[in-house]
Amino acid sequence: MSDEIHLNVGGTLFVTKWSTLQRHGDTLLGSLTTTSDYYNNDKNQFFFDRNPDLFNTILDFYRNGIIHFPTHICGWNWKQELEFWRIPITNISECCYPTYIKYEKDQNLVNYIKNAFIVRTAEYQTHKVSCLAGIKQRIWLFLEEPTSSIAAKIFSIFYLLIVLLSAITPMLATHPDVRQKVVDIDILIYWVNLNGLNLWIDKENPKEVMFVTTVPPKWLKDLELFITIFFSCEQILRFASCPRKKEFFKDWLNFLDVVLFFAMWTIFIIEQSFAEKLLENLDLLIFYSVCYCLVVFRLLRFFRITKQYSALRILLMSVRASIKELGLLSITFLIFVLLFANLIYFAELRDPTTFSDMVIGLWWSVVTMTTVGYGDEVPKSALGRIVGSLCAVSGLLLLAMPIAVIAGKFNDLYEKNANREDFKKLHTIQKMCKVHPSNTMTLQQSKSLKNTSNLNTKELESNSDNKLFEIDM
Amino acid sequence: MSDEIHLNVGGTLFVTKWSTLQRHGDTLLGSLTTTSDYYNNDKNQFFFDRNPDLFNTILDFYRNGIIHFPTHICGWNWKQELEFWRIPITNISECCYPTYIKYEKDQNLVNYIKNAFIVRTAEYQTHKVSCLAGIKQRIWLFLEEPTSSIAAKIFSIFYLLIVLLSAITPMLATHPDVRQKVVDIDILIYWVNLNGLNLWIDKENPKEVMFVTTVPPKWLKDLELFITIFFSCEQILRFASCPRKKEFFKDWLNFLDVVLFFAMWTIFIIEQSFAEKLLENLDLLIFYSVCYCLVVFRLLRFFRITKQYSALRILLMSVRASIKELGLLSITFLIFVLLFANLIYFAELRDPTTFSDMVIGLWWSVVTMTTVGYGDEVPKSALGRIVGSLCAVSGLLLLAMPIAVIAGKFNDLYEKNANREDFKKLHTIQKMCKVHPSNTMTLQQSKSLKNTSNLNTKELESNSDNKLFEIDM
Amino acid sequence: MSDEIHLNVGGTLFVTKWSTLQRHGDTLLGSLTTTSDYYNNDKNQFFFDRNPDLFNTILDFYRNGIIHFPTHICGWNWKQELEFWRIPITNISECCYPTYIKYEKDQNLVNYIKNAFIVRTAEYQTHKVSCLAGIKQRIWLFLEEPTSSIAAKIFSIFYLLIVLLSAITPMLATHPDVRQKVVDIDILIYWVNLNGLNLWIDKENPKEVMFVTTVPPKWLKDLELFITIFFSCEQILRFASCPRKKEFFKDWLNFLDVVLFFAMWTIFIIEQSFAEKLLENLDLLIFYSVCYCLVVFRLLRFFRITKQYSALRILLMSVRASIKELGLLSITFLIFVLLFANLIYFAELRDPTTFSDMVIGLWWSVVTMTTVGYGDEVPKSALGRIVGSLCAVSGLLLLAMPIAVIAGKFNDLYEKNANREDFKKLHTIQKMCKVHPSNTMTLQQSKSLKNTSNLNTKELESNSDNKLFEIDM
Amino acid sequence: MSDEIHLNVGGTLFVTKWSTLQRHGDTLLGSLTTTSDYYNNDKNQFFFDRNPDLFNTILDFYRNGIIHFPTHICGWNWKQELEFWRIPITNISECCYPTYIKYEKDQNLVNYIKNAFIVRTAEYQTHKVSCLAGIKQRIWLFLEEPTSSIAAKIFSIFYLLIVLLSAITPMLATHPDVRQKVVDIDILIYWVNLNGLNLWIDKENPKEVMFVTTVPPKWLKDLELFITIFFSCEQILRFASCPRKKEFFKDWLNFLDVVLFFAMWTIFIIEQSFAEKLLENLDLLIFYSVCYCLVVFRLLRFFRITKQYSALRILLMSVRASIKELGLLSITFLIFVLLFANLIYFAELRDPTTFSDMVIGLWWSVVTMTTVGYGDEVPKSALGRIVGSLCAVSGLLLLAMPIAVIAGKFNDLYEKNANREDFKKLHTIQKMCKVHPSNTMTLQQSKSLKNTSNLNTKELESNSDNKLFEIDM
Repeated sequence: MSDEIHLNVGGTLFVTKWSTLQRHGDTLLGSLTTTSDYYNNDKNQFFFDRNPDLFNTILDFYRNGIIHFPTHICGWNWKQELEFWRIPITNISECCYPTYIKYEKDQNLVNYIKNAFIVRTAEYQTHKVSCLAGIKQRIWLFLEEPTSSIAAKIFSIFYLLIVLLSAITPMLATHPDVRQKVVDIDILIYWVNLNGLNLWIDKENPKEVMFVTTVPPKWLKDLELFITIFFSCEQILRFASCPRKKEFFKDWLNFLDVVLFFAMWTIFIIEQSFAEKLLENLDLLIFYSVCYCLVVFRLLRFFRITKQYSALRILLMSVRASIKELGLLSITFLIFVLLFANLIYFAELRDPTTFSDMVIGLWWSVVTMTTVGYGDEVPKSALGRIVGSLCAVSGLLLLAMPIAVIAGKFNDLYEKNANREDFKKLHTIQKMCKVHPSNTMTLQQSKSLKNTSNLNTKELESNSDNKLFEIDM
Repeated sequence: MSDEIHLNVGGTLFVTKWSTLQRHGDTLLGSLTTTSDYYNNDKNQFFFDRNPDLFNTILDFYRNGIIHFPTHICGWNWKQELEFWRIPITNISECCYPTYIKYEKDQNLVNYIKNAFIVRTAEYQTHKVSCLAGIKQRIWLFLEEPTSSIAAKIFSIFYLLIVLLSAITPMLATHPDVRQKVVDIDILIYWVNLNGLNLWIDKENPKEVMFVTTVPPKWLKDLELFITIFFSCEQILRFASCPRKKEFFKDWLNFLDVVLFFAMWTIFIIEQSFAEKLLENLDLLIFYSVCYCLVVFRLLRFFRITKQYSALRILLMSVRASIKELGLLSITFLIFVLLFANLIYFAELRDPTTFSDMVIGLWWSVVTMTTVGYGDEVPKSALGRIVGSLCAVSGLLLLAMPIAVIAGKFNDLYEKNANREDFKKLHTIQKMCKVHPSNTMTLQQSKSLKNTSNLNTKELESNSDNKLFEIDM
Repeated sequence: MSDEIHLNVGGTLFVTKWSTLQRHGDTLLGSLTTTSDYYNNDKNQFFFDRNPDLFNTILDFYRNGIIHFPTHICGWNWKQELEFWRIPITNISECCYPTYIKYEKDQNLVNYIKNAFIVRTAEYQTHKVSCLAGIKQRIWLFLEEPTSSIAAKIFSIFYLLIVLLSAITPMLATHPDVRQKVVDIDILIYWVNLNGLNLWIDKENPKEVMFVTTVPPKWLKDLELFITIFFSCEQILRFASCPRKKEFFKDWLNFLDVVLFFAMWTIFIIEQSFAEKLLENLDLLIFYSVCYCLVVFRLLRFFRITKQYSALRILLMSVRASIKELGLLSITFLIFVLLFANLIYFAELRDPTTFSDMVIGLWWSVVTMTTVGYGDEVPKSALGRIVGSLCAVSGLLLLAMPIAVIAGKFNDLYEKNANREDFKKLHTIQKMCKVHPSNTMTLQQSKSLKNTSNLNTKELESNSDNKLFEIDM
Repeated sequence: MSDEIHLNVGGTLFVTKWSTLQRHGDTLLGSLTTTSDYYNNDKNQFFFDRNPDLFNTILDFYRNGIIHFPTHICGWNWKQELEFWRIPITNISECCYPTYIKYEKDQNLVNYIKNAFIVRTAEYQTHKVSCLAGIKQRIWLFLEEPTSSIAAKIFSIFYLLIVLLSAITPMLATHPDVRQKVVDIDILIYWVNLNGLNLWIDKENPKEVMFVTTVPPKWLKDLELFITIFFSCEQILRFASCPRKKEFFKDWLNFLDVVLFFAMWTIFIIEQSFAEKLLENLDLLIFYSVCYCLVVFRLLRFFRITKQYSALRILLMSVRASIKELGLLSITFLIFVLLFANLIYFAELRDPTTFSDMVIGLWWSVVTMTTVGYGDEVPKSALGRIVGSLCAVSGLLLLAMPIAVIAGKFNDLYEKNANREDFKKLHTIQKMCKVHPSNTMTLQQSKSLKNTSNLNTKELESNSDNKLFEIDM
């Protein structure tokens, strides 16, 4: 019986054998001797002020040589226990490693979300600044942090309206009903020929004809100019007031702004000064067109609202975090699109009216696999229809698999963000109760403070009652 | 060893140090002294009549300074424990806060569902009423609570049939085969010109021609009048008998009824008295048309069955509770629709037959991103098809993410409702057994009462046996 | 201290107060006295031979007045505990009732699946039968239980091939290339007019013309006759040999067979004897057509394979168990289809080419909400396209919600069935080891029997090794 | 009291009755006597050095006769316990068997994944080889294991580019703009007739005309030849260097390579030598066409990257593991497609313009059930549209159910693979720390080694910090 060792962990007695513990000599338990501080001579046992519930798992490591965790304990506790008992984490079994690592992964994810939502207001208010720096700082907060003041909030809404407006103006500028006719197409061609110029316009294409014979109305041009000036001012102010210029271009939205700045002004200058040369000079025309197309991306400025609208940011974060799954989706999709494009072409070879070349098969594969099914290209032979059926079902299956993983990730991030906001709200209410204990308190808060012994639970109730009305699940 | 403190919690001994407990002096354990009521001098230990399984988590708070909960205990227990040991909830760690709050969130959700299904019958029967009030009350219950009597149930089914009828009559009224010709279009135009009137009808539009040259048959008009009168009576009775008139218009269905009441009678009056003036007076025609369109929403009266058909109400509640996710869905969808509308226009610019203006691109984007794919507008250039492929895949991805969250919420609410109904059924059966112990009992119930010692389990079996036949999973 | 009561449950000591236990006097613990059989005078404590882990939850019921269950214990244990301690199940809290009831629900579901897969072979072999009854029994097993013998298995595959053939023959019989021309349409009409008959055929409809001017080839008619005779014989044998004739028609497949029996022979008789009268007699023609259409449902005989192919039966069971969710899906779908049909009609009223009446709107709504999008009816006005966009997005959302619940149910049933098959396989292997310990054993099984002490685990390994090759997850 | 038996399991005392234990005499506890090694005479109890937390479940087996497991303990522990206490696994209850078997299933799955990703590099380096064998080995590793060296990695990327190129060349070879005209179709037909040959070409089919009147340009032919030679060399080298030739053809990719090898060279030989005979000899033409079609499957060589790109391999494994579910999907889909094809034909019989035969109905059913909806065949009658609506909704439902199961399996495998990679990474870092304790260590690793007592946790932190930047969730 002298081999028996008695361990008292938090009041509960554990009995095992010395030989069992000494299997792992470099751990705390493996190197125990009766001269240890933990030894209690009177009771002939070692005393550890630890949680006895968790100790069975630790002891099982010595008995079995490997660690298996129960799943109901938070991973934080296991980290503490392994550190205290000096057990290396490489002894965790493969099947239980996910249980152990889940806590840290979740924590990293929560921290990652938190970092994305840090409001830089606080950072400014802590240290004093000179006059000019103070103005810069106020402008920066005004432009960057809609939550910093009411004016900033109003500005951010106004900013979004301008973005929306900048999305609608090019739509209107391409609509035949809005544009004003300036010249007849035949006269234009006659004039062009008269001047011995090359005309890059296809007379049969009504869209190109419209562009050369009509101009947007005055009010639309003015609106466009206003938008251009507004965004230019905003960008210059934003850059000038930015406290960390190095990090400025790391944000892809700021980088986009710079590109758009040059594109917008290039368009403006060309339209003002070289409008006539556009018809003569193909290079200039192409350059102009590229700039015009670039301006489309003004729309992405909508993503500036992610500061306020956390759900949208979570969506973007999910897409970015799913880069691997998107790659998988793209590659599988590509392989099957190429495969079905080949198959459908050969299957439909004897039908004179369908799939005149294999490149059309690519388009048909994409349209069928995504179940869009426009019907512009449809197989007509029996073989072609069998290929088509396989293509449609494969598409459903192959897309369902990675999309389920991506949607799952979004769900996870979304829920973690909701929990983070709940936790933040709880601490904000507690802080408010402590800071203003008597004057600015709402009825509900004061009620909860009266019976201080029940503070914790009552507080929560009032908190959750509010939630009931918000139908916040 | 004098630093050691012995705590007997529900029979299990816990040993820790005084210094550990005194880290949090404002809690029950932190402020313990040997003069406390909990102290037992004989055994030199404190005795608490609490669950020892949960106490390890409490003690770990003193050891680690933060609370981490095991996940297998119901949140209700933790609430009780924290209250008893006077530990503020702000000491809960962020990672375990969702575990703690889950119970309250679930409870709020269940209460929210319960409130939505409260039957107001009971509330009436408790206090005596005068004669007139008694009639009002009976009418109200008859109209509002289909579960209150058999007559009310029959009426509610009849009501739904009338709603269905009111959905079919306008369908028939617009069908060319049903309507009766009264005048030839050329004669009408001749007559209109003769009288020097302005005619607002496009002769090329067969639908408009049909409306002015034909009338619905007599039986359809009579049916329409019957429906109008039926709903009018029902609404007046409902309002007259409503015990809380203030809350009446808070229910959007009642509000809708009032709007429909005026719209229906306006149509009736115009058709009866001013039918000829419709062709002359554009304002009247527009007013008439708006009323006519409003009547479409009669269909929404179908949602009155949510009182009886809980699954439908749960669906509506899910949609309402997902207002944030629907917002996210709308905004993301809007940004990408605008973006792809721009891109496809520029990509297809050189093709004369497609996308004549950018507004068509909007429609195409919506049709492609939802994978509906009508095929009325299809890109034909290589570049356009690449944009189209991206649009289709983006649509699948972006819609899958918020829809997964919304479907998850519905799933959650649906399951909670099923549990609520199970629980209610259990208590209803128990009550029935107690109230009518001998006469009105069914065979199954009496059998389960005989062996009273096994009441609890047998009861449940009979309950669950029934379920087996319902295939209620 | 005399209020303290000491309870020894399975070796662990629990201490609480008499007053606490007496709150619920009608339970076992509430009615304890020192004269009880459980009382141990020497140690001054009560001894119960129960699991101490579960007793804390029982004791907490006396402390808190309500039962909350930890989630990690199987519901079966709680049922035993509540029965032993005589605690009525109505004391379970609402939040933990689902935890408690989950075990019984799961068990009911497993039993429900088991009942669906009972093989009636065993039932027959146990009692002796007379000669005729013996033959009946063999025929019945041969027809009904493909697992009963190899011949029955071969017959069941042959049966399925005939079903498949019976699905293909009508396809061929309607194909213009297969049918043989017997008369020219003009001659037929001339002949009909000559005989003064009414002809019910639309000369402009190529399909109807084909039916009256051509006949299926001889070999197709013979095949059809063979199929008719095969199924007739099989049905008669099946009915004649059926041991429980009352239950025969409860199976919808047998009921279908009877309907098809009469339909097939009616068609045969009409074609043989009254073929000429079909053109004269409209009633006969309609009767013939209805019979012809009914024969389509021969295909549903495919579902006879569910006896062997459990996954298909699970799918059918899921659909049947989701009857409530399918109802919800139908009603929501119906309301929205009616609503959007109305809206699109009014939105497109001024466009002469689209939606000529409201009934077309119904079809368009269905096609758009299911994202099929044929493109035969497409809105063209701006307002109509907004309605169309809303319709597509609503369809995605509304269908996703109930379909997620139904798919979840299928997933649940599917997994339960896989577990049931695993469990059955384990017991089958164990039984085989015991019945034939030496002769018919496979190598693997004998190996596992040698070291009998490790039987349980080794057995399982061999079992799971097999699984590895089946890639059975 | 002599019936009581005291068991000390890891320090915790359990008390039960001898009679309870003796119910199962063939187990360890059932066959205990006081002469056992486990008996301690002094304390009059049995001592077992096991985990007391798990012993309650074991003891409950003796009390209840069946084993129910708590869900929070890893299945590995239960396996150990059952083996130690000699309890056969057939005593596990059906409801808890999935809990028990889950561990082994998961482990089998993880092993299955591991086997798929074994890198054969290590196996080679362990034993010495002769010169020729050494070269063979190096070639094999170069071709098969892209992770074995940088050159192998570059080669594998180059290989994929060639595969991509081999997918694009046939696309170009079928495009009218790329091919060069060599002869006019009328001249060709004249020439063919002149020589009295049969011409298998349909003059009305522009695709067939293109194939006989044009040839791919020289550069495309050379490219094709290069690809053919490249793959041929690679295949020969791969086969020659393969160390286990028997297993070579078990890999379907190698088998495919052989088929493609012969197909490619057949095409090449026919094009070079018998090009003229293709127009005369139908058998040769068909043989040539089959070879040409086979070459399409060159694309499947893309799946060679699964060695490096684990997500793609996991996708393929999921599809292979879902063979049962895919069968279910196919059969259900087939039955419903056949059913709706029949129904739509009869529903649309009176409409002369739609569904001219039943085979078209098959295609329509597939297109509608997958919600592709091309719109080439659309029902026009009211009855046909009802059938169409049912078909679309059935399709959504029936496909959702098996696809949810398959997507779930992918999700499971995908997560298991991510965990496997995490675990591998942890052990790789640990190994690196031990092997090169001072010189090749990165800053982060050395930092974590300094404070050795915190090695386990700090290590993990650095590991997880890296993950944060990868946004690896």
